[in-house]
Amino acid sequence: MSAGPAIDLNADVGESFGRWTLGDDAALLPHLTSANVACGFHAGDPLTLWRTVLGCVEHGVAIGAQVGYRDLAGFGRRFIDLAPDDLRADVLYQLGALDGLARAAGGAVAYLKPHGALYHAVTRDHGQARAVVEAVVAYGGLPVLGFPGSVLLDLAAAAGLPVVAEGFADRAYRADGSLVPRSEPGAVLDDAAAAAEQAVRLVGAGQVRSLCVHGDSPGAAATAAAVRRALDDAGVRVEAFA
Amino acid sequence: MSAGPAIDLNADVGESFGRWTLGDDAALLPHLTSANVACGFHAGDPLTLWRTVLGCVEHGVAIGAQVGYRDLAGFGRRFIDLAPDDLRADVLYQLGALDGLARAAGGAVAYLKPHGALYHAVTRDHGQARAVVEAVVAYGGLPVLGFPGSVLLDLAAAAGLPVVAEGFADRAYRADGSLVPRSEPGAVLDDAAAAAEQAVRLVGAGQVRSLCVHGDSPGAAATAAAVRRALDDAGVRVEAFA
Amino acid sequence: MSAGPAIDLNADVGESFGRWTLGDDAALLPHLTSANVACGFHAGDPLTLWRTVLGCVEHGVAIGAQVGYRDLAGFGRRFIDLAPDDLRADVLYQLGALDGLARAAGGAVAYLKPHGALYHAVTRDHGQARAVVEAVVAYGGLPVLGFPGSVLLDLAAAAGLPVVAEGFADRAYRADGSLVPRSEPGAVLDDAAAAAEQAVRLVGAGQVRSLCVHGDSPGAAATAAAVRRALDDAGVRVEAFA
Amino acid sequence: MSAGPAIDLNADVGESFGRWTLGDDAALLPHLTSANVACGFHAGDPLTLWRTVLGCVEHGVAIGAQVGYRDLAGFGRRFIDLAPDDLRADVLYQLGALDGLARAAGGAVAYLKPHGALYHAVTRDHGQARAVVEAVVAYGGLPVLGFPGSVLLDLAAAAGLPVVAEGFADRAYRADGSLVPRSEPGAVLDDAAAAAEQAVRLVGAGQVRSLCVHGDSPGAAATAAAVRRALDDAGVRVEAFA
Repeated sequence: MSAGPAIDLNADVGESFGRWTLGDDAALLPHLTSANVACGFHAGDPLTLWRTVLGCVEHGVAIGAQVGYRDLAGFGRRFIDLAPDDLRADVLYQLGALDGLARAAGGAVAYLKPHGALYHAVTRDHGQARAVVEAVVAYGGLPVLGFPGSVLLDLAAAAGLPVVAEGFADRAYRADGSLVPRSEPGAVLDDAAAAAEQAVRLVGAGQVRSLCVHGDSPGAAATAAAVRRALDDAGVRVEAFA
Repeated sequence: MSAGPAIDLNADVGESFGRWTLGDDAALLPHLTSANVACGFHAGDPLTLWRTVLGCVEHGVAIGAQVGYRDLAGFGRRFIDLAPDDLRADVLYQLGALDGLARAAGGAVAYLKPHGALYHAVTRDHGQARAVVEAVVAYGGLPVLGFPGSVLLDLAAAAGLPVVAEGFADRAYRADGSLVPRSEPGAVLDDAAAAAEQAVRLVGAGQVRSLCVHGDSPGAAATAAAVRRALDDAGVRVEAFA
Repeated sequence: MSAGPAIDLNADVGESFGRWTLGDDAALLPHLTSANVACGFHAGDPLTLWRTVLGCVEHGVAIGAQVGYRDLAGFGRRFIDLAPDDLRADVLYQLGALDGLARAAGGAVAYLKPHGALYHAVTRDHGQARAVVEAVVAYGGLPVLGFPGSVLLDLAAAAGLPVVAEGFADRAYRADGSLVPRSEPGAVLDDAAAAAEQAVRLVGAGQVRSLCVHGDSPGAAATAAAVRRALDDAGVRVEAFA
Repeated sequence: MSAGPAIDLNADVGESFGRWTLGDDAALLPHLTSANVACGFHAGDPLTLWRTVLGCVEHGVAIGAQVGYRDLAGFGRRFIDLAPDDLRADVLYQLGALDGLARAAGGAVAYLKPHGALYHAVTRDHGQARAVVEAVVAYGGLPVLGFPGSVLLDLAAAAGLPVVAEGFADRAYRADGSLVPRSEPGAVLDDAAAAAEQAVRLVGAGQVRSLCVHGDSPGAAATAAAVRRALDDAGVRVEAFA
C-alpha cells in the first residue's frame, strides 16, 4: 500500500509551434506529475508555452524547463557543437523565459531537464554538461532531471544541486542500461501495456525516481494513463519530486 | 546646482547577434543611467545579453527590457500585425529571458521599453499597447518607458504602472512634437553638439523624465558623453528613474 | 462533355516543418492539377520541399512557388510591413530555392502564388504587389495565380505576365465577392459537399480559371476529391493552367 | 611573365544580415576573381545577397555558393550533426536560392564552396561530404572548391565534378599541411605583407588552383590587394577557375 518510495511521472509538453500542433497536451497533462515544457529553442512558441504553463498550474503538475539547442528545423535532435559559454547563456535565457511565463501564470519552474540531442550530449560531454550545471547554479539552483549515471547528474550533484534519475517507460533498453537509439527498429514501445509493464519493472529495480513517457506519439495520453494505472495497481505512490 | 528634477539618460545596447557586432556598448554604457537591453527577438543572442547585463551591473546602469517583434532579418523595425494574445506572450517570454540573465548577473530588469516598429505601433495601436501593458502587469509590474502622449503610456498609467516619458536627444522633431521618420533626410542629428543642445532644450521644456541617445550610430558614445556634459553644465542632475 | 473551358484545381502543400507535420500531402496531391508549394519562409523545411516536389513530378502536378513572409512563428499569416526592395529580394530567394529543388527532381516551378498575409496584402498594397511582380519578371517570367481583381493580378498583367484568377471552393464569400475573414465564424466550408457545390457554381460564373481547396484542414483530400468529382459530373475539364 | 598556371583569388562576401554589416564587400570585390557568397543559412539576407551578386556581375567576379549550416546565431561555425538527407536538401535549397538571385542579376552560380564548420566537417565526414556532392550533382553539376586532400574533393572528383583545391593566404599552417585552428593564437595572419608572402609561397608549391583571403577581417581588402600585387610581381596570372 504505497509503503515504498514515491515515483514521478514526466513527459514532454509545449512542443507545438505556431500553426503546427504536436502532441495532445490537454489529454496528457492530467496523468503527469511533472511536465517538461519546451522553452522556445527547439519547440514552443510563447503563446503555446503560456497555455501550457497555465495547464500545469491548473492540474497541479510541476513545471520543468526542457532546454534544448536552438534548432527549430531539427527539433533539437541534432547535436550542435556549442561552446560552453554560449550554451550556458542559452540555458539561462530559456530558463528565464519559461519561468517568466510560469510565474505570470501563478507557478514557477521547478526543475530542469535537457531535451533531445542535448540530453544525450550531456550524458558524456563534460564541457556541455558543466555549462548546463553552471546555468542552473547561476539561476539560483533547481533540481536536475536526467539519465542515471550521466555526466550531467554527476556534475549537478557535485555542485550541490538535487538530482533526479529517470527511466523510460516506453523506450527499449539495451543490456548495458543504455537506450536503443531512435534510429533503430523497436526503439520505442508503442504498446501501452508493454510500457506499463516496463514502468513497474523500472520502479522495482529501484534506481529511478521518475519515469518518462513520450509526449509526441499519438497514443501518449493512453500510455501515460496505462503506466499510472499499473503503478497504482502495484501500490506505487505517484508524486512529483519537485 | 541641480535644483530641478533629475533626468535619466537611456540608450539601446545588447544589439549584437552572434558574429555580428553592433554599437560599442563598452564605450557607451559608462555614460548612461538606463540601458535598453535587447531581448533576443529583434537582436541580442544570449551570450551578448549576458555580457551586456554584466556590464550594466558593473557600471550601476539600470537594466531595461527592450522587447521587440520576432524579426531578426528586419531588426524589429517592420510592423508586424500580431494578435494581442501572441504579443502578450512574446513580451512575457522576452521579459523573463532577460530577467533570468540579469538576476544571474546580480541585477534585475528594472523597466520595459518597446523597440523599433513596436515602439511606434504602441503610440497609437490600442490592441498591441494593451497586450504590452498586460504582459508587464502579469509579470508583476515594472515602469514603462515610452513616447509622451502615447497610447502605451496612457494604458500603462491606467493599469497603475509607473510611466516615464522620454525625449530624443539626437532625433529631429516636427512642429507637432512627433519625430521626423528615419526614412526622411535629417531625421537623425549626427552632430554631438546639436544633440547636446537639443537635450538641454528638451529638459528645459519639462515634459520628459528620460532622454534617449541612439546606441547603434558610430558616434553614440561621443554623443552620450556630450549630452551628459551639457546636462552637467546646465545644472541638471542625471539619474536613473528606476 | 467538357465543351467549356478547363479549370485548374490548386491547394497548398509542403507546409510541414521538421518534426511538425501539416496536412496529408500524399493523399491530397493525386486530386490536384496545381500544387502551391511553400518555399521555406512561412513553412517548409528543405527536405519536406524536396519530397513535395518529387511527389508533384510523380503525379504530374504543376509546381507553384507559394512565397510568403519570413515568419515561421506566424505561418506567414501576419502582415509584415516589408520595404519593397526587401520583399522583391525575399521573393526571388524563395523562387530560386524551390526551383532548384524542383529542377533537381525533374520538374520546374511553373507559377507563383503568394501565401497568407502576403496574398491578402497584394490584393490592395501597390508597393508590395509591385515588388512581387518585379521579382517574377526578374526571374524570367511566370504565370501569377491570385485573387480576381487584385492589384497583384493587375500589375502582373500590365507587366506582361500570364495571370490566373482563382476562386475558393471551401471559403465563404461575401456578397461583394470578397472572402469572409478566417476570424469570423463560417469562414471555412468544412463540408465537402458544400465545397463541391460552390466549386461548380464558381466555375459556372466563368470568372476563375483555377479553384483552390485548403490543404491544411483534416478533410482536405476528401474535399479535393469531392470537388473534382463534382466538376467531372458537371462536364468540366480539370486541367492545370501552367 | 605569366608562363605558369593561373591562380584564382577567392574570399567570402555577402555575410551581412539585415541591420548587421560584416566585411566591406565593395572594397574587397574588385580584388577578387571568385566570390564565395553566403546563401542565407549562416549569413546573408536576400537583399544583401542581391546586392552582392549585382556587385559580382559588375566586377566580373565568379559567383560561388557558399553553403553552410542553418545557424545564424553561430554563423555556421558550429558543427551540426545533420542527417545526410537533410544536408543534401539544405544544400540544394541554398544553391537554388542564390542562383535565382544571380540569374536575375545577369550572372549565375559558377561553383560551390562549403562554409565554416561544414567546410571542416566535409574534409573528413563521409556522410556529410557525400550529401554535398549529391546535391551538386542533382543540381546539374558545378565545380567544387575545397581543402586539398579533403573527403569532399575526393568524392566530388569521383562523381565527375571539377574540383579546385585552395590554399589560405592569411591562415597559419601546421607542418602537416592542416590549418592552425581559429581558437589558437596566431591562427590568422593579420599582416597583409605576411599573407602576400605566404600566397606566393603557396602558389610556388604548385598544389592549389585558388587562394583564399578572409573577407570578414577589417583589413580584408588591403590583404587581398597586397596578395594580388605580390602575385603580379611574381609573374603569376590571376584568373578565375570557373
